[in-house]
Amino acid sequence: MSPDFAQRLNAVAETVEAALDAILGPAPLAGEIARPQRVLDAMRYGALGGGKRLRPFLTVETARALGGDAAAALRAGAAIECVHCYSLVHDDLPAMDDDDLRRGRPTAHKAFDEATAILAGDGLLTLAFDILADPATHGDAEVRVALCLGLARASGLGGMVGGQMLDIEAESSATPLDDNAIRRLQAMKTGAILRFAVEAGAIVAGADARKRQALLRYGEALGSAFQVADDILDAEATSEQLGKRAGKDAERNKGTFVSIHGLDGAKRLRDRFVDEAIAALGEAGLAGEGDILREAARFVAARAN
Amino acid sequence: MSPDFAQRLNAVAETVEAALDAILGPAPLAGEIARPQRVLDAMRYGALGGGKRLRPFLTVETARALGGDAAAALRAGAAIECVHCYSLVHDDLPAMDDDDLRRGRPTAHKAFDEATAILAGDGLLTLAFDILADPATHGDAEVRVALCLGLARASGLGGMVGGQMLDIEAESSATPLDDNAIRRLQAMKTGAILRFAVEAGAIVAGADARKRQALLRYGEALGSAFQVADDILDAEATSEQLGKRAGKDAERNKGTFVSIHGLDGAKRLRDRFVDEAIAALGEAGLAGEGDILREAARFVAARAN
Repeated sequence: MSPDFAQRLNAVAETVEAALDAILGPAPLAGEIARPQRVLDAMRYGALGGGKRLRPFLTVETARALGGDAAAALRAGAAIECVHCYSLVHDDLPAMDDDDLRRGRPTAHKAFDEATAILAGDGLLTLAFDILADPATHGDAEVRVALCLGLARASGLGGMVGGQMLDIEAESSATPLDDNAIRRLQAMKTGAILRFAVEAGAIVAGADARKRQALLRYGEALGSAFQVADDILDAEATSEQLGKRAGKDAERNKGTFVSIHGLDGAKRLRDRFVDEAIAALGEAGLAGEGDILREAARFVAARAN
Repeated sequence: MSPDFAQRLNAVAETVEAALDAILGPAPLAGEIARPQRVLDAMRYGALGGGKRLRPFLTVETARALGGDAAAALRAGAAIECVHCYSLVHDDLPAMDDDDLRRGRPTAHKAFDEATAILAGDGLLTLAFDILADPATHGDAEVRVALCLGLARASGLGGMVGGQMLDIEAESSATPLDDNAIRRLQAMKTGAILRFAVEAGAIVAGADARKRQALLRYGEALGSAFQVADDILDAEATSEQLGKRAGKDAERNKGTFVSIHGLDGAKRLRDRFVDEAIAALGEAGLAGEGDILREAARFVAARAN
């Protein structure tokens, strides 16, 4: 990771944190009746104070490479981060992955209680669409509603929610998943949102169809690299490095890219996805402007947590 | 309930059921990767096969009274119903109200399991915004995005989710709520969505500001009548009539309109809200066109389940 990339990643994470902190303030917006303290606190707990903010980073940097409005991209990225954070809060629940630790802190249902964690997740998911639909995000209703639709498709039944269902089913299945099934599961569970994070930057910037298609391929390949890297991390890293329990995949005997391709094979696969992502940036016609996005693809492949 | 009103209520319920059945079909939409069977089944279980469909009825009939597009109103109403249904699925969870019975059937986490019920709820909430943002709902992006924003405000932190949090807190509190606190709780938990169901009809129909304001007052008064009627029902009805456990409020010692005003006082309050709702329809300039909406206000006050 170049010092320049690290600086940009941190800078965007700080602006995302500040944006979410302001959005999750105590004052009700027009149309809201009140913001009850306990669920607001739990939403803040789930959304603030941690994470690389990779998804908003992709939105912000894609929009920047295309000359899009920075403030609009930041709000769109913050909305996508709300969906990511809600999914972590719900996935950690006892009925789901039953995790006590997340980013080195107690999970939301441990810090609060299960009912509050369920509601906080529901609140963060709803808030994501509130942010995107709000005229404060972008002056053009076509842009705002395209963001709403894209986020819904990426995060619902046919995307993240469906992927989490497949993941849960895989864990209770006697036979581990094969390569195709893992790819579909991962493309839904984590890939769809990563891809949309890139697409959202293109939507905000009003990119033409050719650029948008190429950037979709970039986002998809980056997402695939991310997923393979995740399996490699789970196999190699310690819980301390991850800030959450490691070795879960092997423990649960579910198929992963590592169990199917071996550690070296998984690393080759990961590197191939990074190459694909970088090639797609070229097709999008992003030369110098795409440097940060190129590094982003290498970063998701090489990250240590 | 006049035969004409009963017929309209049933007719709308049937079209809503058919619309949700089609929306929750097996084929993935553009941008969706696949629709995993188990979570699709659970979403269908939560959304189909029951309910008066009061919220979509209000949307459809408000749009009709204003001369708005029927198909657009139906889709908007179906989206609002998805939010209502998700809230029931999540509220019934063991960590929340812990109910085994809903509309005379096992609750979703009983028919499936907790993890699937949580995901199905998340999927229905996300689907609501998918429906509203989809160009199939309305040709004008301004209309679609206004629907998204209104639904988010009504159903999130400052609306339904916040109201459910207050309700849970009230149950573990030593002192029952006072009248003001109950009104706020109910306005958030059930009132905001009912009010928005009416507003959505006005948005679809492109009503002017004066009509929209009057209809907001109608929706708010109707929602209040609904809530007081709900407390009266809980105190008077049997579980068989309700299709869910009755007498829960008294059992949990939480303040209700009945515990504060007595049964007769609550009935007077309910009737006052109905009068307010009907007066607001007059202010909206809906004479003959508003007959069904007038009956709707009386219906929510007099319903037996």
